[in-house]
Amino acid sequence: MPLPVPVLPEGVDPAWLPPAAFRAVGGRRTLIRGSGPLVETVHGEVAEACRRFGGRVVRGGRVDASYDLVLDAEAGGLGAEGFAEERAGGTTTVTASAGRGLLYGLFHVVRLQEAAFTGERAREVHRPALALRMLDHWDNVAVHPVMGQVERGYAGGSLFWADGRARGELERVRAYGRLLAACGVNAVCVNNVNVHETEAHLLTDRLGDVADLAGAFRPYGIRTHLAVSFAAPVLLGGLPTADPLDAAVRAWWAGAVARVYEVIPDFGGFVVKADSEGQPGPFAYGRSHAEGANTLAAALAPYGGTVHWRAFVYDHRQDWRDRTTDRARAAHDHFTPLDGRFAPNAVLQVKHGPMDFQVREPVSPLIGAMPHTRLAVELQATQEYTGQQRHVCWLGPMWSEVLRFRLGDTSVGELARGGLVAVSNAGDDPFWTGHPLAQANLYTFGRLAWAPDADPGDALDEWIGLTHPDAPRRLVSGLHAVLDGSWRTYEKYTAPLGVGWMVQPGHHYGPSVDGYEYSPWGTYHFADRDGIGVDRSRATGTGFAAQYPEPWAQVYESPRTCPDELLLFFHHVPYGHVLHSGKTVIQHIYDTHFEGVEEVEAARRVWASLGDLADPARHTRVAERYEEQLRGAREWRDQINSYFFRNSGVPDAHGRRIH
Amino acid sequence: MPLPVPVLPEGVDPAWLPPAAFRAVGGRRTLIRGSGPLVETVHGEVAEACRRFGGRVVRGGRVDASYDLVLDAEAGGLGAEGFAEERAGGTTTVTASAGRGLLYGLFHVVRLQEAAFTGERAREVHRPALALRMLDHWDNVAVHPVMGQVERGYAGGSLFWADGRARGELERVRAYGRLLAACGVNAVCVNNVNVHETEAHLLTDRLGDVADLAGAFRPYGIRTHLAVSFAAPVLLGGLPTADPLDAAVRAWWAGAVARVYEVIPDFGGFVVKADSEGQPGPFAYGRSHAEGANTLAAALAPYGGTVHWRAFVYDHRQDWRDRTTDRARAAHDHFTPLDGRFAPNAVLQVKHGPMDFQVREPVSPLIGAMPHTRLAVELQATQEYTGQQRHVCWLGPMWSEVLRFRLGDTSVGELARGGLVAVSNAGDDPFWTGHPLAQANLYTFGRLAWAPDADPGDALDEWIGLTHPDAPRRLVSGLHAVLDGSWRTYEKYTAPLGVGWMVQPGHHYGPSVDGYEYSPWGTYHFADRDGIGVDRSRATGTGFAAQYPEPWAQVYESPRTCPDELLLFFHHVPYGHVLHSGKTVIQHIYDTHFEGVEEVEAARRVWASLGDLADPARHTRVAERYEEQLRGAREWRDQINSYFFRNSGVPDAHGRRIH
Repeated sequence: MPLPVPVLPEGVDPAWLPPAAFRAVGGRRTLIRGSGPLVETVHGEVAEACRRFGGRVVRGGRVDASYDLVLDAEAGGLGAEGFAEERAGGTTTVTASAGRGLLYGLFHVVRLQEAAFTGERAREVHRPALALRMLDHWDNVAVHPVMGQVERGYAGGSLFWADGRARGELERVRAYGRLLAACGVNAVCVNNVNVHETEAHLLTDRLGDVADLAGAFRPYGIRTHLAVSFAAPVLLGGLPTADPLDAAVRAWWAGAVARVYEVIPDFGGFVVKADSEGQPGPFAYGRSHAEGANTLAAALAPYGGTVHWRAFVYDHRQDWRDRTTDRARAAHDHFTPLDGRFAPNAVLQVKHGPMDFQVREPVSPLIGAMPHTRLAVELQATQEYTGQQRHVCWLGPMWSEVLRFRLGDTSVGELARGGLVAVSNAGDDPFWTGHPLAQANLYTFGRLAWAPDADPGDALDEWIGLTHPDAPRRLVSGLHAVLDGSWRTYEKYTAPLGVGWMVQPGHHYGPSVDGYEYSPWGTYHFADRDGIGVDRSRATGTGFAAQYPEPWAQVYESPRTCPDELLLFFHHVPYGHVLHSGKTVIQHIYDTHFEGVEEVEAARRVWASLGDLADPARHTRVAERYEEQLRGAREWRDQINSYFFRNSGVPDAHGRRIH
Repeated sequence: MPLPVPVLPEGVDPAWLPPAAFRAVGGRRTLIRGSGPLVETVHGEVAEACRRFGGRVVRGGRVDASYDLVLDAEAGGLGAEGFAEERAGGTTTVTASAGRGLLYGLFHVVRLQEAAFTGERAREVHRPALALRMLDHWDNVAVHPVMGQVERGYAGGSLFWADGRARGELERVRAYGRLLAACGVNAVCVNNVNVHETEAHLLTDRLGDVADLAGAFRPYGIRTHLAVSFAAPVLLGGLPTADPLDAAVRAWWAGAVARVYEVIPDFGGFVVKADSEGQPGPFAYGRSHAEGANTLAAALAPYGGTVHWRAFVYDHRQDWRDRTTDRARAAHDHFTPLDGRFAPNAVLQVKHGPMDFQVREPVSPLIGAMPHTRLAVELQATQEYTGQQRHVCWLGPMWSEVLRFRLGDTSVGELARGGLVAVSNAGDDPFWTGHPLAQANLYTFGRLAWAPDADPGDALDEWIGLTHPDAPRRLVSGLHAVLDGSWRTYEKYTAPLGVGWMVQPGHHYGPSVDGYEYSPWGTYHFADRDGIGVDRSRATGTGFAAQYPEPWAQVYESPRTCPDELLLFFHHVPYGHVLHSGKTVIQHIYDTHFEGVEEVEAARRVWASLGDLADPARHTRVAERYEEQLRGAREWRDQINSYFFRNSGVPDAHGRRIH
């Protein structure tokens, strides 16, 4: 039985799967071969498209020339997720070895639109580079008094939870899964890595809520994961300890996992934030993170589950007066001694940078330092430090730079053998992501997780094409223009030269140069009247630069070789220091901040000029957010420029107004 | 029938009315003459003291030599609150013309302890200098999502409200009223001046809750006031407008007030925060504050009620880039044109300084600029900006400086014809004020409201003596030592030279030099690499200094004459500017911050040395808070010194450690 396509609630934006995106497929004659639940999903998709656009779909039987499209899940050799696509003799053929591969193949054809049915197309095999392509939702079940329903969420409430309860809007969850499948995501963790009291119970007495979500995701090939508390044996099991080497603790985890798999046979596994920002962990019992992770991994192993163990471990109660501790070093210091000690189904999940999702960071050296450990790399689609979905900031170029960055002989994309993970930016907002253009981040993440070496600009253009299938050229180029450079624009008007952290404490929106300067969070810039930056060199600083393999250790060691955009991350320099660009640091600060605002003004003008072409609700929402972005960019410009002018006393070379 | 003394709940501290404070009275033979409810209160007090200490009390009848104490409410000429006290022929006599005066006379005798019954005492007449001595409680009925149960409260929950309901613990309210009467307070406003949705209803359908509180306060001579929303006619009355000149609005207020007086015949009146920090007000209707206040005053006039209209009106959405707006000017600019326009029962309630309860501000020039308006002066007992009752900061000297300050020929204490008001620092904490030593602020406020020209040190010693009636000399002198200089100590380690506002935004605890520097709140210090301070001179600055009468306008106009402690409030000066003290500004900053911490260390040692003498629970609580105070003082010292060292580049002359 074909599975009906999920129906969106009234007023909810179809994002990158509007009905018109299926016009090319829906107008054709399609043959579908194969069986299994995901083939039924494929059938449902094609049937719905045909209903709308007049085509026909046939299930099973012989391939013949009367078909425009053959979707065949009975081929061999393509694995669970791979597919091949070709066009010959007037028939486009997608072959796969399983339903999931066929589904990805169908969405591939959808993306191609009319091009899928034009001319000849040589056979291309598509396989995901990474087996795990996951979204972590920092969604709370109960509203947290400080963090709210969704921690660092900027898209309304949660799709899964509301006020302590499961929302039960499984049709929308299914629609979300469909969007994710269309960009290649195959795993979702449904609750916040900060596991509070209510959320801990999802593992046991509230498992039914998780099973409901898993049921909604399953038809789109998405496995459900759960963030759990390391203290669960104590919190939920009533044991006196959560010591990972304690036999009763191990037995408790084994029992809990067995019960999970009884109701969710394809359960993905756990995500654990342990000994991190106040969450419990193995340190309390004198155990290592490997011992902690392996106990959970042992419980999951019989069922094929995985534990994702976050490497985000640092001293978050640091004294700002202590110059010997460097938060950037922490993950490498903590975890490299454990390389090779993690179980095969334990994945160490490492944030892409050594700090925490700033607009510019170097790649985390830990990613290249664990050759005997499965690593996942974690990105942040939710725009915590990049404008909170009130500012346009398409992160594709940043993520691509990270994934293509080479540590030794290997790119980060290749090193991420355990998968690519992003913190989701989606919520119950009608546009899914608050800012309609932030949908592009979610889409791009999925596509880069599938192919980390892909050109992110191609993903952007795919997103534009799918989201606006009938768009005239001016709209397409306008959208590309306002998104393509938006990350660099955001970087320009916010924290310069890799210094980061000049945000308002707590909520992290808007500028506060000294907001984190005297805090316990290990986030300092050390600006004074003479200069700014953190000396992380081996010779005179914290030694963080030496955590990199060559050539990076040497490149980052000296201000002469360090790339401009990371200069203040690695070095404390005088304001008069001359960058590779030929500008002084202080003039660079002034210039980029003026330029950043000008670029926002220009983007806003482009957007305004598209009012006749874009969907009115979408256009209005984006236009409103551009007002806020412009206000915010000016605030950033003026605070940053004033702060550094007051500190340095150096006037702007161009005599512009600094308050 | 004598009114029984309120019984404190188990574990609640008796503050400055421990049973032993009544030993001298309770061991005597006392005659009470007069009638009325407050005489019954007096009778109950004496009866309880006698029950405990073996004395006797007789009601009515002739005065004869067998009495040690005569409390006579039937004398003439002393007004509602005055009393006379003398001792001759072995009898101490207190005379009053009303029950309230007699109650104050009794507490006077209690304060004197054995001295009241020793030798001869010449007749002294005591009358309060100010008719209104009020505490404003910023207590919310419903817990506010940001501000909590008590806005700027540091003493647990509210005595009156909890989670949207009246607490109904009227015995404790009565005990609170008793404490207040013992220091001379005669009015309490029972809800926050920021009147939110739930609280607005106290005026109408939840009036019964207010009447209950009024009933508990009444036996101790305290009238109950209510903070109301200027928009009440719209919010509660369903009218389309709250325009104060609209006839229906005026009728609505008249009706509402009539209903209040039906159930609370001695109701004190309203407190109104209008057009201030988002509260509604007359500006919305193009009306002046006098027109707004007078409409409420007209409704209250037939019953003898008063409207307290707060002058805390300023632009709280200021752009920090706008140097032409000066928040310090705002109250004077807004209200002086309205002098003489307020109804006789409208009191303009003015904060003592032009900003907002910083540790050091000049006196508000508005206080001297409204000769034809009844003014009340508002102080802040709750330690929002002075250590939040985790730090010892006895505010007596600051308040006394304010009250004795002369604007023209008249002191602030004399100008406050409408009364003295303090924001209460009391809550449901077992010690009433969180920090046990913060009780001294509440007590001192009451005594200064009674006699604004009194020596605050005398009030402190009274508080010490009452609170610890059997204390050995070492405890008394130790308590005096740790409290007496604590305000200047707090000033030393926090914001220097009158600059203020170097606090963490929002909660206002702990240092953040730039926390309010780029904010919309009008609170700036303009520190740069060369200097710091706000130029408020007439010649080159905002002109605020010119709002003062002479000699102050001239004194404040120039850094040569401006007192050191207010220098940065009035002037922007280089770090090398030499103070009257002979030190440079930068060295003063360093020195005071080191000294402040040393003074806290010394006070902590004094307190530790009293462990054998003080009540254990009280000693432990204070000792714990000293740990936090010391931690906090060091944090202040290090952040402030680091910030200014980084900015100025000037090393400490004594080579001490600056981080």
